[in-house]
Formats: sequence, C-alpha cells, structure tokens
Amino acid sequence: MKIDLRSDTVTKPSQGMLEAMMLAEVGDDVFREDATVLQLEKKLADMFGKDSALFFPSGTMANQTAVKLHTNPGEQVICDKYAHIYNYESGGVAFNSGVSCKLVDGNKGMFTAQQVIEAINPSDYWYAKTSLVEIENTTNKGGGACWDFEEILKIKKVCDEHELGFHLDGARLWNALVAKNEAPKDYGAIFDTISVCLSKGLGCPIGSVLIGDAHTMGQAMRIRKIFGGNMRQVGYLAAAGLYALDNHIERLVEDHKKAKEIGEALEKLSVIKIIEPIETNIVIFELNNDVDEATFKQRLANKDIHIIGMGGGKLRMVTHLDYTDAMHDKLVQVLKNSNFTSN
Amino acid sequence: MKIDLRSDTVTKPSQGMLEAMMLAEVGDDVFREDATVLQLEKKLADMFGKDSALFFPSGTMANQTAVKLHTNPGEQVICDKYAHIYNYESGGVAFNSGVSCKLVDGNKGMFTAQQVIEAINPSDYWYAKTSLVEIENTTNKGGGACWDFEEILKIKKVCDEHELGFHLDGARLWNALVAKNEAPKDYGAIFDTISVCLSKGLGCPIGSVLIGDAHTMGQAMRIRKIFGGNMRQVGYLAAAGLYALDNHIERLVEDHKKAKEIGEALEKLSVIKIIEPIETNIVIFELNNDVDEATFKQRLANKDIHIIGMGGGKLRMVTHLDYTDAMHDKLVQVLKNSNFTSN
Amino acid sequence: MKIDLRSDTVTKPSQGMLEAMMLAEVGDDVFREDATVLQLEKKLADMFGKDSALFFPSGTMANQTAVKLHTNPGEQVICDKYAHIYNYESGGVAFNSGVSCKLVDGNKGMFTAQQVIEAINPSDYWYAKTSLVEIENTTNKGGGACWDFEEILKIKKVCDEHELGFHLDGARLWNALVAKNEAPKDYGAIFDTISVCLSKGLGCPIGSVLIGDAHTMGQAMRIRKIFGGNMRQVGYLAAAGLYALDNHIERLVEDHKKAKEIGEALEKLSVIKIIEPIETNIVIFELNNDVDEATFKQRLANKDIHIIGMGGGKLRMVTHLDYTDAMHDKLVQVLKNSNFTSN
Amino acid sequence: MKIDLRSDTVTKPSQGMLEAMMLAEVGDDVFREDATVLQLEKKLADMFGKDSALFFPSGTMANQTAVKLHTNPGEQVICDKYAHIYNYESGGVAFNSGVSCKLVDGNKGMFTAQQVIEAINPSDYWYAKTSLVEIENTTNKGGGACWDFEEILKIKKVCDEHELGFHLDGARLWNALVAKNEAPKDYGAIFDTISVCLSKGLGCPIGSVLIGDAHTMGQAMRIRKIFGGNMRQVGYLAAAGLYALDNHIERLVEDHKKAKEIGEALEKLSVIKIIEPIETNIVIFELNNDVDEATFKQRLANKDIHIIGMGGGKLRMVTHLDYTDAMHDKLVQVLKNSNFTSN
Repeated sequence: MKIDLRSDTVTKPSQGMLEAMMLAEVGDDVFREDATVLQLEKKLADMFGKDSALFFPSGTMANQTAVKLHTNPGEQVICDKYAHIYNYESGGVAFNSGVSCKLVDGNKGMFTAQQVIEAINPSDYWYAKTSLVEIENTTNKGGGACWDFEEILKIKKVCDEHELGFHLDGARLWNALVAKNEAPKDYGAIFDTISVCLSKGLGCPIGSVLIGDAHTMGQAMRIRKIFGGNMRQVGYLAAAGLYALDNHIERLVEDHKKAKEIGEALEKLSVIKIIEPIETNIVIFELNNDVDEATFKQRLANKDIHIIGMGGGKLRMVTHLDYTDAMHDKLVQVLKNSNFTSN
Repeated sequence: MKIDLRSDTVTKPSQGMLEAMMLAEVGDDVFREDATVLQLEKKLADMFGKDSALFFPSGTMANQTAVKLHTNPGEQVICDKYAHIYNYESGGVAFNSGVSCKLVDGNKGMFTAQQVIEAINPSDYWYAKTSLVEIENTTNKGGGACWDFEEILKIKKVCDEHELGFHLDGARLWNALVAKNEAPKDYGAIFDTISVCLSKGLGCPIGSVLIGDAHTMGQAMRIRKIFGGNMRQVGYLAAAGLYALDNHIERLVEDHKKAKEIGEALEKLSVIKIIEPIETNIVIFELNNDVDEATFKQRLANKDIHIIGMGGGKLRMVTHLDYTDAMHDKLVQVLKNSNFTSN
Repeated sequence: MKIDLRSDTVTKPSQGMLEAMMLAEVGDDVFREDATVLQLEKKLADMFGKDSALFFPSGTMANQTAVKLHTNPGEQVICDKYAHIYNYESGGVAFNSGVSCKLVDGNKGMFTAQQVIEAINPSDYWYAKTSLVEIENTTNKGGGACWDFEEILKIKKVCDEHELGFHLDGARLWNALVAKNEAPKDYGAIFDTISVCLSKGLGCPIGSVLIGDAHTMGQAMRIRKIFGGNMRQVGYLAAAGLYALDNHIERLVEDHKKAKEIGEALEKLSVIKIIEPIETNIVIFELNNDVDEATFKQRLANKDIHIIGMGGGKLRMVTHLDYTDAMHDKLVQVLKNSNFTSN
Repeated sequence: MKIDLRSDTVTKPSQGMLEAMMLAEVGDDVFREDATVLQLEKKLADMFGKDSALFFPSGTMANQTAVKLHTNPGEQVICDKYAHIYNYESGGVAFNSGVSCKLVDGNKGMFTAQQVIEAINPSDYWYAKTSLVEIENTTNKGGGACWDFEEILKIKKVCDEHELGFHLDGARLWNALVAKNEAPKDYGAIFDTISVCLSKGLGCPIGSVLIGDAHTMGQAMRIRKIFGGNMRQVGYLAAAGLYALDNHIERLVEDHKKAKEIGEALEKLSVIKIIEPIETNIVIFELNNDVDEATFKQRLANKDIHIIGMGGGKLRMVTHLDYTDAMHDKLVQVLKNSNFTSN
C-alpha cells in the first residue's frame, strides 16, 4: 500500500467523477460553446456572488492572469514572503507582468493591515508604484493556516484607501471555508479577483477558476489567450469540477481530522522540534538535530510512505481524497513504532 | 443535421477515443509522474526523430514557448504576413517574448529562402537582431497550402548560415504529411522545434505538443510553467492523443477529398470570384460583388450550415472528423441548388 | 574640406550656442530643480499649446516612452512600414512596451485615414488590441516628405472614433513646419503626444522633448526614470535647446534650398534612376545598374564627401547647419564633373 | 549661505570643469565618432583593467543594462534589501528585464558569501532561476558603508561555483577606493560588470559608465540603444568626466573627514538615537521620540540647511564637492547651538 502525502494534487478521479467526465456535453470553448465549462463558470460565479468566472489549466495561470489584470509593468504587488506567486511560479510575475513583489514578513504566510500600510511605497517616481495586495488562504508554505476574516476586512479598507487591487489566491480556499465555516459570498464581496483550484482538495485532475466582475473577466479572457490557456473541448475537465463542487467539499473535514491526528502522532516523536499548528490538511514540521531531512524522508520511503522536504530541515505532509483510512492507520502505526534518529 | 465547417477544432471525441481517455493511467505531471503523457511525448519525439517532446494545453502556448526559446527580448522573428503567431495569438510574441515579427509578403502563407535572406536585418545595433524563422505547414490563412520541402531545405541552409533558429508551427502538419506523403522524421531533421496539434484534424478535445532536442525542451518545461501550462493528471488528454495518432492520421485523406469536392461545387457558383487551390482540408474562397460576406454566410446558416468569414469578402470552410458523408452530400446539394446572390 | 551629409545629427554647436550652454543656470533635475530645463520644457509646451513637456536624452527614448504611455503589453501600434520606431529603434517597442507594429504600406512613409481604418484589428480576443496610431513628420526613410495636414485631421477623427491614441514622431517636425508654413499649436491640438528633436536640424548636441497633457506627462516622468533617462544638471543641454529655438528654426529654409539644388545636380547624372521628391532637407535617390551603391559612395568619399547607403541601391544625403555654402558649391561641382559609372 | 546636504548629486561644475567641457572635441557618438567620449571610455576601461566601457546618461540606466546583460526574463538577482536597483529604480528590473530580486537581509546594505549560498534557488523548474549577484559599494541606504574586500572575493567564488554573474553598482565606488585605499583593477578582476558614477562625488553634471569585457559591452551598446540612452555629441559630458577623474578623486578624503565631523556633532545631540558608522561621505542617523523627522528637517531648513528624510525616523546628510569649509563650520555651529526637541 503506497501512501503519497507529498501533495493533495496527486489524487486521481473517483469512479463517480470519471463517469461525470465521460458523460459531459462538450463544445469548442474558444468559441465559448462548451456548455459544461460555461455551467461550471456560472456556478462558481454565483457561489461567490460575482459576475463572472473563467476556467484555467492551472492555478499558476489563474494567479498570473490576476496579477496582470491589476498591474502595469514596473508596479509592485504586496504579498507574504511565503506567497506561492513569489516562491513557486518560476519568477512569473516579473516575466509575465513586469512587476515585483514587496514581501511582507508575515506569520505563517499571513500579515496585518498595518504591515500592508508600511509596505506601500511613497508616490515619488523613483519608487515602484504599489498597485495590488495578494493573499493566500489557506497558506501553503504557512502550513495550511487560515486567515482571520476580520484582518482581511481591515486590509480591504487599506486597499480602498490607497486604490490597490486585492486578489485572493484561493488554491486551498475550500479548506479554509470548511475549517472556519465561512461562506464564499463573504469572500466574493471583498476581493476583486479570486482564484480557486479544483485539483487539490477537490480531487479533480486539472483546473482552476478565476472569479471577478464582468469587465475584469472580459480582460482575463484576452490574457488567458495570450498565455495560451485557451482550450477546446474543456467540458471533460469542467464536468469533474462540477462533480467535485457537489461531492467533495464537505468531506474536507476528514482530511483536516487526519492531519490533526498525524500531528498528534508526530508530537510524540523525539526527533521533531516544531510542528506548525494544524488548521486544515497540511502538516509542516521541523526536525531537531537527531536526524536530517533526507534520512527522515528515506525512513518513511522505506515503508512506501512519501512526503516532501521543504529545505532547512522542514518537511510537509498533505492529506487528501485518496489518503484512505487504511493508509492513515498504517501511517500512525509507522510513526508510533519507528526509530527515526540518524543512527 | 447541423453542419459545422467553421474549423476542424469543433470535433468531439469518438466513442473509441472517449474510452481510451477514461481508461488512461494517470499521475501528477507536475512531478512528471503521469505515465500516459510521458508515453505520448515519447511516441511523438520518436516519430520525429527528436530527443524530447512536451504536452501543452494549446497550440498557441506551444508556439509562444518556441518563440521564447529561440529569442531574447528585442529580437525579430521572420514569418509570413499570414502567420498564426502574428495574426491570431493576441499579440503574444511581443507580450510574452518582447520580440517583433518581420513579415514576409509570401504566397498563400509561404515564402522563399531568398525572401528570408532579404528579411534579415543588418547587424548594426539600431536594427532589431534577427534570430528566428518561423513557418506554418499547412498554412491556415493561406488555405491549407503545403510547403515545398525543397524550399524548406533551402531556408534551413539560410538559417544555418545566419545562426537563426527554425520553428515549425505544425498545427496542421498531419494534413501536409498525408497530402504530400512525407515523413515526420524528415521534418524532425530540419527544424529546431516543431509544434503539432492534437485537436484539429486528429480530433482530440485538447492539446498540442512541442518537439525538440533535450536541452531546448528542458528550457521549454520552465517556460510552460511560467505561462501556467503545467497541469496535473494530464493522462486523460494524452490518451486521446495516443488514440488519435493510431487511428486518425490516415483518414485525413477523406477530409482532403471532401474539401476538393466542396471546391468543385463552389466553382459552379456564379457569386464566387476566386477559390484558393485546395490541397488539404481548408477551403478559402472570395465572393464577387453579387453577394456580401454576411449574406452568403446567412444563406448557409439558414440551412444549418456554419462557416466563418475572414474579412474582406473571404470565407473559410474546414472539413474534419465530424463532418460526415451525409453532411457532405447535403452541403453539396445545398450549394448546387441555392441562389446566393444578394437578392 | 570634409563634407558630411550622412545625417543632420552630425552638427556641432555654434559659438553662440556654446556660450549659451556655458552660462546656463543648472540644478539637479532629478529633484526638478534645474531652472534651464524647466524653462525649455515650458517654452515648448507653450509653443504647442500643451500642458507639459519633458526633456529626454534621445528621440528614441521620447518615442519609446510615448508608445508605452499609450499602450499595454500585447497591444498594437499602427504605423508606416518606414516608421523609425519600427526600423531604427532596435526592436524597442516590443522590448520596452510588449507591443507590436501593424505596418501600413504607405507612400513615402505616409498613409491615409482609410488605411488606418483597414489596419484596426477586429475586437475578438485572439487579435492584438489596436490602441495607438503613430506618424512621423517629416518622414525620415520617406525622404523628408511632409504630411498633408488635412489627412492628419482625418486620421485624428478615426482615432477618436476608435479610442486610439495618436503620437507624432516629430524628430524633424521643425523642417515640416518651416517647409509648409504650419504652426506648432495646430499639431498640439491634434496629437496626444509629440516628440521633437533638438539635435537634428536645430543643431543641438543632445536632446529631444516629449510634449503632452499634464496627466500623461506625469506618467512620462516615471517611464523616463525606468529607462534611466533621468539626468542631473541638464541645463547645459537645455540651454542649447533654448538657443536653437530662438536662432535655428527659420534658417532651415536654407537647408531645404540646398537639398533641392543637390537634387537638381543629381538629376543630371546618368547613373541615377529615381530621386524622391525633395520637400525638406533629405535627398534620397536610387542608382540604376551602371553603378553599385558601394562604388558611388566611394567615389564621393574619395573627394571627402560622405553620405550613407540605405540598402537596395538607395542612398541618402541630409543637409544641415554645418553644411556651408562653400561645401555646397564644392558638392555641386563634384556632382557635375565626376563620372560615377562603375568603370 | 544655502547648505544642501540632500545628496552629492547636487554639485555644479567648477570653473575648471566647465572650461574643459566647452573645449571638448565632439562628434556623433551614435556613429561612435565622439573622440572625447571614446577617450573617457578607454581611460576607465584601462583603470579597471577591463576591455571596454560605455557612457550612460544615468547610473540607473547603467545598472538596468547590467541586469539585462546578465539575466533572462523570469530569472532572479540576489541583492541586499537596501539595494538601489530594488528600491530606487522605479521597479525597473522587472519592467526592463522581467527579473525579480531575491532580497538578502544584510548589514548596512552588505551581506556574506554564506547568505548568497542560502539565497540561491533550487534548480526545480517551479523556482525562478538565480543568475546574478549584485552588490553596491559604497552602500547608499546602508550609510556609505564600504564592503570588506575579502568577503567580495568569497562571493565571487560562490558566483563561479554556481555560474552566476556578478555586477557592482559602483555609484560611489570612488569613495570606497579612497576610504579603503583600494585599486580599481582589483575590482575589475572580480566583477563581470561595474557601473561607476561621474555625477556624485566626482561632481560632473551628467553621466555614468559601465565597464566590462568586450563581448558583454558589445551587447550593452544594443541595450543602451533600446532604452534610448544613445546620445549624439556626448563629448561635452565626457570632458567633465575626464576632468573629474584627474582632479576630483583624491579630494574625496575631505568629504569623508567632514562627514565624520558632522557625526561627532550629531552624537552630542540628545534627540539622536543612533548614528550609522560613518565610513565615507554619507551620514545616516535615527531620531528618538523627542522629535519627529519633519520637525528636525524643518529646524535645519529654517537655517537654510537642507537634508533628506528616509522614512521611519531616519535622516541622511551627504557631503560633497560644493559643501565648503564655511558651510561646514556653520553646520557644526548650528548643530551645537540648536534645540531640536519637538517643543
């Protein structure tokens, strides 16, 4: 029994999702004639109380498009030092939009309205113009932490006062909504654009969706085309998304419960220095000097349990739809019974 | 019976293709663990005698990546005035690569080695540096025309002498290979990169593939990620591609035959001024003053036959996998029996 | 006596201009405290009836800034196939602004309002968005030709109807104003931005100025800084500009007269095929088969007369402030008495 | 007697420099025919033991060109969080080169080889590729601090091991050379490119110079043209540079001595919390809560003494060629005799 906890992106469609895909009504989305993708886009726009939504082949493209929509070349985006757009999108914001990131030194990937105010550049022409604030909820590199909604409201106020756009990288927003019992419409009311991912916790093979007002999303279609994200019979992928929205949101509580239980098992290990607070489906922990990152990973790999190292002695496990109860029992047993010290 | 001749991109997967898709073995392609997409990429690399191939969500992204791979910002690409990269990719080469097109005034989208030589800029620093030649085979806006392979060889020689990259936009290369009985490996031996489309003549729902040497394609993976073209369980789409390579290439002769027959039917119409020579599956014709573009299109639409206007009194019909014999008979009958003059 | 007719940029300041430079009151223009450059900018803004003007180290930077001000990446600029921004700015519009040129096949570098209409792309998202029309007056590669002001008015109407910006590359606008007895304010009333050069006909060592409304020029200061065109004690260069505006405009008639006389002398040469109509200070002519470009140039160089070849058997002579009556007499004599045939 | 300590860029040419300027032999530098600029470029290349040098209208353009020369779009530059290229060049590295900065949390603008190693991204394709290290000597925002040459050698070793370019922003390198008694050639032996400024400590009105090997500088000429930094009769500015190299380097010790004396005077003020160590001509100090930044500046302005605030309660004074002994005496007296507390 192989256990893959490297990411929640490794899931494969369930039988039900696969059947939904197979039965999808499709058309040429370049001409906007794919009924299923249009249905998915409308459903998501409605869920968030926004005008419009657009399907993307990846969350990276949805985010890169959003950054482009809210900025001009030379301008600056305020985001956390852990932000996915800064760390894991291959330098895309500079490549695609010609903009730079003003990194905020946040806590678990989250920051305060006061930190935003301090990060805004003066208006003199030798500074990059600040034009966008971007946050991530839940935070990936921050260990799946959920933002405090009150702080988001305060940041929105700062954005309004300084005429800054406000984009939410909601790659794992579904986890936050479930964990904190929040409503999509509350997010829709605040952010100019929101990207949500269908292929992480929701278990779809491919796809992210960007949501916003009608004018912005009209522009988004042009940017998506420029990047080459315009596809043809997208309905097969959209059908998976529709299925997931109906069937895979509430069940995220199970992923969160298992993540917490993994955390409890890890706590008992002498080789663990710190475990980040576990709020959703991500477990990030740091090793002490008794074992190095590579050895720890290898010990688990020897039992066919796969996790990823994040550098600097930090490791990450992510629970997901394909991480079954049986796998969970095995992992907890392995953690309980193994010796992880380097020798 | 709706007849859609607007493009060969409107096809929907056959039952066989759909079954192949749903049975695909998949994995997370971001980690390069999707066995089916790896199989498709290897198959295409082998077909063209190249090291490596990479799946893309669209032909636009495959082309945009190729342009980026062969140029630096400020440089210039020599291509035909009809080139897809210049006309139909939303200004992408300037947006994504910061390069400009030196347009050649070719014939049906094709040009000569001599024209390439004339289009190369002097080396003085106030001229854009010429760094790439791009051709399209078959030519879309040129009416599905096929390049003379001898001319391609001559252009390759010019490229070598002037240290220019050479990219083939092979969105409809399959049609050229079948029409002229040419071998993929002959193309692979000449071009630095080749993009081929799975979703036009081959009938897949989504996907293009870029083919090149190992070093170039290593860079291509990075560029694809920057654009956001990195997807997860791509095997569903790749399986369609594998099925199409096995089942849908030879049958393109049928599309070509039907296109020729449409041409013969059009020739008898008094309202037609010129029909471009029909070499593959595209029929481009120009109306004379007896009828305008919109009226002609509408007359056909009234019979549930859909074609597209290209501006300037030109119209286009494209035959494809979903254009059946019955549809063909009906179209020919309609052309024979209708009065298309404006009144 | 060396005669340099390669360009009107080769002039050196007269004694009067040099004295004006030496006496200039200067300050740090990064802080906008250089009184002389502020005076020059105000004088030019007033001349053209615009709000504001900004000094640039080159006409290329003034034009590149204007293109950036009026476009977003991916968009398209309509300009003549002879346009300086397309031909002689090193691919800068794609590098700096991410935009492409839609080249119009004009006459001597000039085109009609009807050609602009035809060059505007449809609004579908797969076309580059058209956002700017750019013209050059006089036209450099077009042989110093002057635009018909009525046609400019018609193009302005098209720009307004299609919400397009309108930029004038006025590198040699002074020559057009003098030749056609036109007023700067008439140009200021039409164009969104105008670049004028101080170092061609006006004889300054360095400098161009971009003129526009207050909001646009506020943005221009930021773009100039990004390019690195922000200089310190600019007053020395601005003083030359002020001197030239007072002393070197009217005298352009002499350059024009000499250019015409050169044309008359050339007309008598059997080796000349065509001389472009001479409207200002540029003489472009084409050789017939009796002599090649290099030989013709060398025959003149042997007499210490220097001109430039433009490729394709075309050559160019430009009259200017440092081209004296004595030089002119000598050139006309040389043309009269030399045999230019290849052997 | 107005005292301007806002920057060393506010200096105006001395009579000797002005005479050198006006006697300069000039030519059209676009054709590379300006003897004086060629002489300056050769002199600086020789000083640093490099092949070639190129004049720029500003240090910003010299730096932006260097970043472009060493990177491709999407890549990353390692630099200090205080770096001029990140803070004061209007977001130019993203605009002009499409690259991002990996900011190092250094000490007074300087960092260690170990910090460079930690800042290099892993090679996985989802990280931006690291391709350049940039340092500034002396550091502007770091208070004119001078790098330890041994640390620079260690960083060079890291650059070589990781195939990273190494650029020196030497806007105030002259101050470091004089303060630490170092030789330009030692810097030339290490860095791929070095920008030096003529208009700060050296007192020229305009100009910076980029120095590097022949191939790199050939490319630099093209990039300078793209930005629009190609000027005509540059000799007037270059002559100032030649004069300054001969006459204004050694005298920087006077600026440094005065800066130290200002520091001693500031130390006695009760309102000062911290004074950064004074190594060259920059004095940066922080106020305690007894007075705010604006009030302190105003108190000095009331005496016609002008300094600049850097935000966060920090202020900066810069000594320079036009800051005379008489001004210095007055400033020291004012500091001694004034009450700066807010009330």
